[in-house]
Amino acid sequence: MGSLEVERTTIGWAARDPSGVLSPYTYSLRETGPDDILLRVLYCGVDHTDLHQVRGELGNTKYPLVPGHEVIGEVVELGSKVKNFKVGDIIGVGGIIGSCEKCTLCNSNLEQYCSNRIFTYNDVYKDGTPTQGGYSSAMVIHHRFAVKIPEKLAPEQAAPLLCAGVTAYSPLKEFMDSGKVYKGGILGLGGVGHLAVMIAKAMGHHVTVISSSDKKKEEAMEHLHADAFLVSRSEDEMKQAINSLDYILDTVPVVHPLPSYISLLKTEGKLLLVAAVPQPLQFLAADMIRGKKAIMASFIGSVKDTEELLNFWEEKGLTTMIEVVKIDVVNEAFERMERNDVRYKFVLDVAGSNLQ
Amino acid sequence: MGSLEVERTTIGWAARDPSGVLSPYTYSLRETGPDDILLRVLYCGVDHTDLHQVRGELGNTKYPLVPGHEVIGEVVELGSKVKNFKVGDIIGVGGIIGSCEKCTLCNSNLEQYCSNRIFTYNDVYKDGTPTQGGYSSAMVIHHRFAVKIPEKLAPEQAAPLLCAGVTAYSPLKEFMDSGKVYKGGILGLGGVGHLAVMIAKAMGHHVTVISSSDKKKEEAMEHLHADAFLVSRSEDEMKQAINSLDYILDTVPVVHPLPSYISLLKTEGKLLLVAAVPQPLQFLAADMIRGKKAIMASFIGSVKDTEELLNFWEEKGLTTMIEVVKIDVVNEAFERMERNDVRYKFVLDVAGSNLQ
Repeated sequence: MGSLEVERTTIGWAARDPSGVLSPYTYSLRETGPDDILLRVLYCGVDHTDLHQVRGELGNTKYPLVPGHEVIGEVVELGSKVKNFKVGDIIGVGGIIGSCEKCTLCNSNLEQYCSNRIFTYNDVYKDGTPTQGGYSSAMVIHHRFAVKIPEKLAPEQAAPLLCAGVTAYSPLKEFMDSGKVYKGGILGLGGVGHLAVMIAKAMGHHVTVISSSDKKKEEAMEHLHADAFLVSRSEDEMKQAINSLDYILDTVPVVHPLPSYISLLKTEGKLLLVAAVPQPLQFLAADMIRGKKAIMASFIGSVKDTEELLNFWEEKGLTTMIEVVKIDVVNEAFERMERNDVRYKFVLDVAGSNLQ
Repeated sequence: MGSLEVERTTIGWAARDPSGVLSPYTYSLRETGPDDILLRVLYCGVDHTDLHQVRGELGNTKYPLVPGHEVIGEVVELGSKVKNFKVGDIIGVGGIIGSCEKCTLCNSNLEQYCSNRIFTYNDVYKDGTPTQGGYSSAMVIHHRFAVKIPEKLAPEQAAPLLCAGVTAYSPLKEFMDSGKVYKGGILGLGGVGHLAVMIAKAMGHHVTVISSSDKKKEEAMEHLHADAFLVSRSEDEMKQAINSLDYILDTVPVVHPLPSYISLLKTEGKLLLVAAVPQPLQFLAADMIRGKKAIMASFIGSVKDTEELLNFWEEKGLTTMIEVVKIDVVNEAFERMERNDVRYKFVLDVAGSNLQ
């Protein structure tokens, strides 16, 4: 209860330099303040952002860096003001662990856009300490940024929902709760894309997976139960699909030609961007104007979005496709993720690993 | 009433070739079918699109071409099924004079996006005849594409609202009918931009005019009563205005750098495109994502939007800033418009001109 008088330490796996190689690292945790939760990490999802950050590819990495922002943990200790959780609860933590908590955005479930948001790792907490992620035995976080994992969900199952899942859910929820069968496109079938297909299908949409080749066709149709598959390199297929989609969720993290995808949208169709492509993207104003089309963008999701998604996932009986590994193979997991050799996400069994 | 047995002709001013020089041109009008209105043209607004079309700069001009899509006319003859107008009514015709009238778009006041929309000029009507615009003594149009000009509005005053005005109103109406004082930016102060400032002010918004230099500052602040003026070339001014606007209506018809304007938008801010810039436009996905920003686009407005705008204009007691000229100076008017030597729109006094 914030009463520990000696420094409390934990062991995580950190990168020390742009080689991005992770190895054990001992560091301090802050005391459990009145609004905080101390959690024992059980599982943590492995994300492409983790890879980019440990290698310093986003330009702002501060070493040593413990990555991990799809954290599943067990509540071990609670601050005096925390009423919404109890010791033993299984909770989740996503990409944000702090914000101003006062602004309009924080007060309208858009705290991930607060200009004082604090990222779960590679950031600085209010007390001046570096934030470190979930590739670690323990974390202390403000209760406002924790979500309860529904009882029927296996904890490791929930991990990918906390960042990749909610990144897909947050823009797609605008297309929910209506009698209409939306025709949606999912562009890119990686960590976010595969969850997007499952979410959109569970929302009752007609889902077309759009990919540059037909390599992932069987996967999309047989395993993820998409309704259609469209090869973007096929002029014929693209031509046939013009003006057919209500939205396209675009998960592609590298530069790609938007005009051909925008042409697939119906009048009032929306291109939903979630991947921060580093290079400028181009579009043609005339295409957009003549079809009242829009390019929307969104960043992960709020805590409320995450809660909604977890409940939706439980209610619909969905299953994430993950490969659970121990932390001692995390460097290999990064390499395999880089060459797309995982279907679809690695989840680290942190509690079951020897972290030392 | 469709009973004329001889061919009916009218005189307009047409371009014959890409010189774009207009001169008198006699052509046939179709009979007034059961759904049609024959109107005597009183006034017609002069638009940049007219100039581009007569010069063949949009690549699809069919000569001879009579331009004009901000047409004010007096009803002279009615088809048997037309019940919503009577002879003598003053009506307006905008950029679209036909559509399929059956599709979802046509049935939801989005007929300007119908794939079978017919443009007021430089298009082909359902009977196979070329459509010709309002630089002409008369037109026959389907009643569905006419709007009644409110009695308190001077007819010539209403002309610029039929295309330029509704182009601004249609996207701005999303920001109406709320207790909130939106902070809006208007980028570009031409035909559409000046009306946008007036409309946004009348909606109660706080309006910032954004321009590349301070040349138009007095105009914006003194004549159009904008609340603020922002010089986009001034790094300091742009920096101070970051994250300050709910929307920017972008009327600039040539290529321009979107990222600096997108940075002016608040979280959830919208860039509203209405000008079909021919070159690709660029943006940065990260800027959009981190601020949940959107690029929306819209094309002129529906007949319903036009009716709403005319009533709004009358209700708010607004006055368009126009220079009324006779048709014999239309070629000079084009030249003056090209060098921005008009505040802000020319309106042709067609009925008061000698068309021969």
